[in-house]
Amino acid sequence: MTYAPATADQLLAIRVNAGIEELAASERFAAAEPDMVEAIVEGIGQFAAGEWAPLNRKGDLEGAKLENGVVRLPDGFEEAYAHYVEQGWNAIASPVDFGGQGLPFTLACNVLENLGTANMAFNLLPMLSVGAIEALDAHGSRAQQEMYLPKLVSGAWSGTMNLTEPQAGSDVGALRATATPITDGEHAGKYRIQGQKIYITWGEHELAENIIHLVLARTPDAPEGSRGISLFVVPKYHVKADGSLGPKNDLKCVSLEHKLGINASPTCVMSYGDNDECIGEIVGEENRGLAAMFTMMNNARINVGNQGVQICERATQQALGYARDRVQSARAGSPDRKPIAIVDHPDVRRMLLRMKALTEGSRALLYYTAGQVDRGTLGDAAARMRGEILTPLIKAWGTDIGIEVASLGVQVHGGMGFVEETGAAQHYRDARIAPIYEGTNGIQAADFVTRKLGMDGGEAMQALFADIVADCGEEAGLSGLASDCSEIARWMADTASLDDRLAGSVPFTTMAAVAVAGWQLVRQVRSLKSSDNAAQAKSKAVTTRFFLDHVVAEASGLKSSALDGAALLYQLSAEALVG
Amino acid sequence: MTYAPATADQLLAIRVNAGIEELAASERFAAAEPDMVEAIVEGIGQFAAGEWAPLNRKGDLEGAKLENGVVRLPDGFEEAYAHYVEQGWNAIASPVDFGGQGLPFTLACNVLENLGTANMAFNLLPMLSVGAIEALDAHGSRAQQEMYLPKLVSGAWSGTMNLTEPQAGSDVGALRATATPITDGEHAGKYRIQGQKIYITWGEHELAENIIHLVLARTPDAPEGSRGISLFVVPKYHVKADGSLGPKNDLKCVSLEHKLGINASPTCVMSYGDNDECIGEIVGEENRGLAAMFTMMNNARINVGNQGVQICERATQQALGYARDRVQSARAGSPDRKPIAIVDHPDVRRMLLRMKALTEGSRALLYYTAGQVDRGTLGDAAARMRGEILTPLIKAWGTDIGIEVASLGVQVHGGMGFVEETGAAQHYRDARIAPIYEGTNGIQAADFVTRKLGMDGGEAMQALFADIVADCGEEAGLSGLASDCSEIARWMADTASLDDRLAGSVPFTTMAAVAVAGWQLVRQVRSLKSSDNAAQAKSKAVTTRFFLDHVVAEASGLKSSALDGAALLYQLSAEALVG
Repeated sequence: MTYAPATADQLLAIRVNAGIEELAASERFAAAEPDMVEAIVEGIGQFAAGEWAPLNRKGDLEGAKLENGVVRLPDGFEEAYAHYVEQGWNAIASPVDFGGQGLPFTLACNVLENLGTANMAFNLLPMLSVGAIEALDAHGSRAQQEMYLPKLVSGAWSGTMNLTEPQAGSDVGALRATATPITDGEHAGKYRIQGQKIYITWGEHELAENIIHLVLARTPDAPEGSRGISLFVVPKYHVKADGSLGPKNDLKCVSLEHKLGINASPTCVMSYGDNDECIGEIVGEENRGLAAMFTMMNNARINVGNQGVQICERATQQALGYARDRVQSARAGSPDRKPIAIVDHPDVRRMLLRMKALTEGSRALLYYTAGQVDRGTLGDAAARMRGEILTPLIKAWGTDIGIEVASLGVQVHGGMGFVEETGAAQHYRDARIAPIYEGTNGIQAADFVTRKLGMDGGEAMQALFADIVADCGEEAGLSGLASDCSEIARWMADTASLDDRLAGSVPFTTMAAVAVAGWQLVRQVRSLKSSDNAAQAKSKAVTTRFFLDHVVAEASGLKSSALDGAALLYQLSAEALVG
Repeated sequence: MTYAPATADQLLAIRVNAGIEELAASERFAAAEPDMVEAIVEGIGQFAAGEWAPLNRKGDLEGAKLENGVVRLPDGFEEAYAHYVEQGWNAIASPVDFGGQGLPFTLACNVLENLGTANMAFNLLPMLSVGAIEALDAHGSRAQQEMYLPKLVSGAWSGTMNLTEPQAGSDVGALRATATPITDGEHAGKYRIQGQKIYITWGEHELAENIIHLVLARTPDAPEGSRGISLFVVPKYHVKADGSLGPKNDLKCVSLEHKLGINASPTCVMSYGDNDECIGEIVGEENRGLAAMFTMMNNARINVGNQGVQICERATQQALGYARDRVQSARAGSPDRKPIAIVDHPDVRRMLLRMKALTEGSRALLYYTAGQVDRGTLGDAAARMRGEILTPLIKAWGTDIGIEVASLGVQVHGGMGFVEETGAAQHYRDARIAPIYEGTNGIQAADFVTRKLGMDGGEAMQALFADIVADCGEEAGLSGLASDCSEIARWMADTASLDDRLAGSVPFTTMAAVAVAGWQLVRQVRSLKSSDNAAQAKSKAVTTRFFLDHVVAEASGLKSSALDGAALLYQLSAEALVG
């Protein structure tokens, strides 16, 4: 199972699409100068490939196990996590005040990309911790920040997000967990938390010394629905004033889900307050929990889109390796009838080049998005809006193609792909979660055609498509796709009903993502024209050409779906649909 | 897990697309009159749903196990197979001379469709037996037919196909198993078989009294490659002259593959002749084995395409059931903010309607293909050619959309889809094999753009597209797609190099399959206009409309991929592709 970090392509995307040199020109991100960036990208690539990748198959086979309330990971995970913490990788983009390096989000994306390409299930542990850090950094009190952030930033402690309950999935507002204020005694000012949460990623484990749970719950008399939700920080072990760990809080993991994939990631059913002694502190104000959760969710969605890129990279490398080794059949029409490596058969080539083009296209989109987020952090309002518009695109499309590429990877392997021992099937299984969690791709598309479409009176989205048309006039297919997107956006904004917009949301989101990814690839090609790395320039020109001729052309075929409206969807009753 | 046989839609496809009434007008298929057809379709639907479907999840969880050389299936499989045999379902389309009912292949397809929708892994057992019956019926000696066919037809014995070896997958010609003629003694005139075969579906089990292996091997001094392959019948237990079973032959299952899905189907590594005492008889002439294998493979490919339809049906029913039960979030923009069943959210509707449209479209294509095969059997040469042209379409596209629909089914379930207990994930895993076995979909596409494209000087394929254009003028999208197909076929036949054709083969195959499926749906809609089943007519009109507006439109987006040629694929060396 060949795996080498995609360092060169990552550095290209960080430079061209994220625009790291411009970011480093700011005071805040001055540390992100070229040598530092290269050291990080190369360093995390080596670390992840060397220490985390070898655990990927083992984690899949053995999985996380719950034994007497304790979650056990396969041998090797503990050491690999400890080394990750020791080497300081957890702290890349975290606040400097609490031990972080304060580098751009772009570089945090790169750390996650490398870790997740090596081991998608394992990488969820730092991914979730990052979310907890962001939430406490943005909404926690100074005391909370001082208590929790240093250890979360170092990685000594990990974090979780607790939203989902059996009746409250996409509809977070339906949650029922409660938080009752404590008015006297040792915990006065805090809350008693009670309720059950499901799908809690890395909700329980022994790799970190403490686990900081961020839990959404309702205070007594809170308004119904999403306006009555508050956010609480609920540590696994109480933290004393001196920072040392106190007794265990009243919370536990009651079971692990048996899942299709990401088996090394314990997906926990968590129970809070079985003995009515689960103590939490509120983060921010009462009833403002959902807003707090959404701040952190924005980057979390990009991080899940990043998982699409990761699966693409790993599955593509694996398929390429297999295709170069596997000798089968002569080239069609060859006079010597000599069997060749399957990489040289035209349709296998097509599959591999498609995998590569989708991988590089999604990576270009990822870093373009990350760079806009970083510009937003620096105060650029237009970039902030663009980052928000791009977020559902990388999340939805990135994870959709994660499945497509993993599935192609299985196909390239032929019968060996269906046999678990090659590992190709693991990617196909692992990839399937990403379109679901952190807001299903349907919810991403809904966000795109409602909130994002409406930003700045619709101008923010139009500006994106206009930029593509202006910049890519020489690529008729690409500028045509961007024009189609512009037309669809206008129809949705001006004419379509809400139902019509939602009905066309997913195809439209795909079209927009492909248009932006194609554009960002074109920018890479241009940038490489003056490069002295001729091999990289040629490779990029070919994958980009494939992306434009195949992927962009196909996306144009979605236009009529995007514009079809909702009427057809409701001509049959739910009963008739079944019948 | 709701599952009801799709009897009404099957009867419609059998009537309209296969044209069963015309078939029954022939002497050969006179028994296939309407009452008989209805009895079969309803009967097998009830049987499969009642007895085989409940074993689907159990078979997935427990799987087939090899214990001391014996393959064990989970409890219930033995009885369910025995009932299947008792009720005579195995004999539907088999030769009358040997106890079969001699009904059209169309009805055998229906039996397999129902069994496979209930239990895809289990259904491979009869599927493989049908292949063995066809091979012996077409190529066996009268003595071989009399010895093996009655029990294979009844289902008392099962059959297998042994092609693949580790170095000989898609390239069957690379196989090395040997067959040495026996010149004297008890087995004079027979052959000693030696070699290892992999991926042998249901290669060993205890459900049938005997297993009749059809094995490809080389005789001494046979020419190299595919022209030196002969076909042998190698029973698990020797069969005595009186038909009773003799001692065990020298063959065994040495291991089972650990697979992504279809866990109840034992995928065996078979070893023949470890003690040099494996005895087989040649079927047909020496060195003509591949041709014999291909006769049976043609229908086998349709049967695998059928598996795509099966997965679609089952996954769609499951997702519809879940979507009607699962209440989550209010309808967007609704004033009352009351949570509704997710089936009523626009994008969930879109997914479900897409699943339904793909299911019904692939079924229409399946039965259209089967009907052409039956007409071919009756001596209609044009229909025979059309059946051959359609075979790679239903195999490749049917199985590709099997994955797409199963994946959408997981998505409709949200988080519950990724948890194995719902069963949605099983379909996603099971579906993945079908694009691989019985000739990968790349090989189907290669067949489509070489052998099938060249039939009757290219006229056979052009006639198909011309029929669609002529019949569907009122559907601009559909006739446009068919015209595009016609143009691509002409370019491939007249201008393109072999590499160019292969490079565009998969997108072209998808386009052609969608065009034919859309056409066959349109024919169903027309036929239902005069029907007194208004509900069915309306439902079909809606799914067909969706198919035309969405699926056909998307397929049109593949045109540039189909025409792109091979040059781009070879601009990078294999090394550069990896780098």
